[in-house]
Amino acid sequence: MDYKLTQSSRFDSTPFTSRNALAGVSSYTIYNKTLLPTIFNSYEEDYHHLINHVQMWDVSCQKIIEIKGPDALNFLRYVSCRNFETIDKFKCYYTPMTDFNGGLLNDTLVYFIDNDTVWVSISDSDMLMWFSGLLVNANHNVEIKKRDIYTIALQGPKAIKLTEELIDKKILSLSFFSFDFFNFKNTQVLVSKTGYSKQGGFEFLFDNAKIACEFWDFIIEEGKPFYIKVGCPNMIERVENALLSYGNDMTSRDTPYDCSLGKYCSIDMSYDFVGKNSLTKYINNFEKKNIFHVFFGENDLKIKSKLKCYDDQKEIGEITSIIFSPKFKKNMGFMIAYKKDTSTDKSKKYFVNTEQGLIQATILNLS
Amino acid sequence: MDYKLTQSSRFDSTPFTSRNALAGVSSYTIYNKTLLPTIFNSYEEDYHHLINHVQMWDVSCQKIIEIKGPDALNFLRYVSCRNFETIDKFKCYYTPMTDFNGGLLNDTLVYFIDNDTVWVSISDSDMLMWFSGLLVNANHNVEIKKRDIYTIALQGPKAIKLTEELIDKKILSLSFFSFDFFNFKNTQVLVSKTGYSKQGGFEFLFDNAKIACEFWDFIIEEGKPFYIKVGCPNMIERVENALLSYGNDMTSRDTPYDCSLGKYCSIDMSYDFVGKNSLTKYINNFEKKNIFHVFFGENDLKIKSKLKCYDDQKEIGEITSIIFSPKFKKNMGFMIAYKKDTSTDKSKKYFVNTEQGLIQATILNLS
Repeated sequence: MDYKLTQSSRFDSTPFTSRNALAGVSSYTIYNKTLLPTIFNSYEEDYHHLINHVQMWDVSCQKIIEIKGPDALNFLRYVSCRNFETIDKFKCYYTPMTDFNGGLLNDTLVYFIDNDTVWVSISDSDMLMWFSGLLVNANHNVEIKKRDIYTIALQGPKAIKLTEELIDKKILSLSFFSFDFFNFKNTQVLVSKTGYSKQGGFEFLFDNAKIACEFWDFIIEEGKPFYIKVGCPNMIERVENALLSYGNDMTSRDTPYDCSLGKYCSIDMSYDFVGKNSLTKYINNFEKKNIFHVFFGENDLKIKSKLKCYDDQKEIGEITSIIFSPKFKKNMGFMIAYKKDTSTDKSKKYFVNTEQGLIQATILNLS
Repeated sequence: MDYKLTQSSRFDSTPFTSRNALAGVSSYTIYNKTLLPTIFNSYEEDYHHLINHVQMWDVSCQKIIEIKGPDALNFLRYVSCRNFETIDKFKCYYTPMTDFNGGLLNDTLVYFIDNDTVWVSISDSDMLMWFSGLLVNANHNVEIKKRDIYTIALQGPKAIKLTEELIDKKILSLSFFSFDFFNFKNTQVLVSKTGYSKQGGFEFLFDNAKIACEFWDFIIEEGKPFYIKVGCPNMIERVENALLSYGNDMTSRDTPYDCSLGKYCSIDMSYDFVGKNSLTKYINNFEKKNIFHVFFGENDLKIKSKLKCYDDQKEIGEITSIIFSPKFKKNMGFMIAYKKDTSTDKSKKYFVNTEQGLIQATILNLS
């Protein structure tokens, strides 16, 4: 079921909201108290366009929290599960952050600008409240605030060619998860080779709404030969490609180790971080959970909510972000299985409890 | 403009969501990541019913954070601007909470259950993140967590009579902003004489979704002689009656003293709280802001966003939560004026900048 949403000052529109409307956005979500388009034509049509061409997205909901001051790097270390004993300028770092008990609070993207300046691009939870609470009694000489940054993503197989032609050939030298500053209309724009799809592309972070809108209009016009469309992060594309969504697929009830994010975490660094003790105990003493892809049914079941998955009579987990995959011709979603050693053997029979009754399912590791 | 909202697991429905749908809810907002109905028939129709009869509201979005442990009261003191040198069990306290700089983080309702147990009912900001951050380095022996509480409000001039007849005559002895436990189907239910309207009534806090739904159905059936309807907090009623909404009318850029909440604050208690130093400096050294009612235009201008207010050429503030008041036959809203001593003299001419041009306005203190 979809809902009608009353306009409110408790959530933000963005400089691009009217442009999304012009481009025919049909549905939104609220993400970090900001409007984020979810559908233009349909999940399926948007998906096929995204994986074949190039789309421009308003992802201003990826709020930027700036940590600024002589202790910026130390504060970053204090709040991150990722090992930042060494860190490189002009690099982006996918960084889980946890609470005192090791529960995941956010899967962030850290922009290391310089020793005094760190930007944290957050998924959907209020990390400014968390950082501000921590800072009251932590002895870090930093200022922490939300920056008014307006982010445009160009994503899709043609995104790189388009960007190269229109912005600067130098952009080709950006490696995956790095960033640099480029010139647009005499304004410095932060461009990172990142984005919430597996189709390739860039994200453009503007601190000036007017310039950002001029960039938007410029790209729409010049992108026509590339068959560019205004789009948004696509649920089908992200689920097929194992891109998790905080709040949907994992929450503070999970540690990073329960949902495939252990590879971005360490407990071996010399310094302490919030949650390090708890995560150390968890790794050494407790049976961990693990996240899988679950596939079931060959017709689109149009499922809009979570479903439970069973091994014989026993519930083994809950399936989230369920879509029908055009690629695999199956319904599929993510599942944090209560047991890490859940078998992915193809002969193993699992069942999903749907409105149409029990349907057989297969489980695969995230690739 | 209203938006279509895509269903997502990043926000919660409530045990009553299907019942709201049955009752004909037409629009929602997202409040504390939870669905909150905003309109059933129309703001105006809902308003007239509310001020004449009795409504049942699903306000489960008023999330309850429980502070539990030997230091519960000390932690409450640490995070509250309100003077809790003395505090009474079974009382509710409207309590502003601020950040380190004295910026308002939330206007909460505190339920003081006992020395070990405090419930904080929050408006729309993630106070669990704030409390959890503070707790990491504060030496308070407490556990803090979100409780799964499902809250029903009965509001309207007939709410008290209805409740008395159906629940327990003892409920009549509850004074304003006090609470007690009552029996419904052999379950203890917390009932407080509170609610987000000025029409009178109660709030019922259930920790059992099944019992809560049985209560809902019972009230719908037995409330028929009272012409009960399912409703929701009504924007017209709250603006006419000076009930502020955090995130709409005041934010973390305002101190409690800037928006009429100074009367719930103190800097004279013997203990320290987060923001006390900053608020003390602010009170003694800075020119404060103040919040007013602004009235303008005699036809419903159907305004959906904030508007700026001017004294001659000078902007004096921004008007929020604008509605057309059936009572005053004017458009009206709130304004935090940049200067506390903004004149409310009736001869003084102010102007609001609308799409129809400048319209003359009057300013009044909140009554």
